[in-house]
Amino acid sequence: MPEARGLPTFAPRGTPAEVEHGLAFQPRFDADGLIPAIVTDLASGEVLMFAWMNAEAVALTVETRIAHFWSRSRRKLWKKGEESGNLMHVAEARTDCDQDVLWLRVSVGGDGVACHTGARSCFYRALPLGQPPTAETVMIEK
Amino acid sequence: MPEARGLPTFAPRGTPAEVEHGLAFQPRFDADGLIPAIVTDLASGEVLMFAWMNAEAVALTVETRIAHFWSRSRRKLWKKGEESGNLMHVAEARTDCDQDVLWLRVSVGGDGVACHTGARSCFYRALPLGQPPTAETVMIEK
Repeated sequence: MPEARGLPTFAPRGTPAEVEHGLAFQPRFDADGLIPAIVTDLASGEVLMFAWMNAEAVALTVETRIAHFWSRSRRKLWKKGEESGNLMHVAEARTDCDQDVLWLRVSVGGDGVACHTGARSCFYRALPLGQPPTAETVMIEK
Repeated sequence: MPEARGLPTFAPRGTPAEVEHGLAFQPRFDADGLIPAIVTDLASGEVLMFAWMNAEAVALTVETRIAHFWSRSRRKLWKKGEESGNLMHVAEARTDCDQDVLWLRVSVGGDGVACHTGARSCFYRALPLGQPPTAETVMIEK
């Protein structure tokens, strides 16, 4: 019997050696059914954003090559850029040694903005290094 | 009275506008007291690893410019590379719009290996795109 759309199945988790060295995709989702996803710009390598995916978002992203996430605040599937036109076109999707993180290399469509603030990347502030951060720390605009 | 070492204080969370647009460092830690950290290679831009930090790890990383994390499996502070010699020298530490993720740009010391498997990066496998992932998916070595 075909499975209902939206309930993708992946290979079950194997031994640590299988997870680390095998080529079977055996992702681990956390207690909330989510896996973290790092998104970088294909051209510049810059980290654009960080978000979470449920199994359906992973499956849709891999199949359609358009990044989908799970919005924890709205508690719904989130096709990033659906309203703004800044869809994220996925050139590569990797997983890590433990298969509990994904890394997407993307080209952002539309005007190339990834952050809801209007910035290209969500990571537009840096911490001053070499001193312990305190309640008075002032960050540096990038 | 000076605070005990290992209990750093950061600015309290402000309004959404302050968190997103202000320059005060107001990090959000999750229910376990942790914040996710993305680590990329300063030279290549490649994502090397993903790990978690508690407040102490954040403070030590920012102050010493050597990446520290919180090992969830060992439940202890983790000075990455302390045993292998592959310390991560932090050139830049950014936070995102919501201030609930950190991005470290690092140079890896020693033999330049970031992953406990011996790989330079933990992300050494990619998913085949354009088809839904299944239990039979075979990944691609990078």
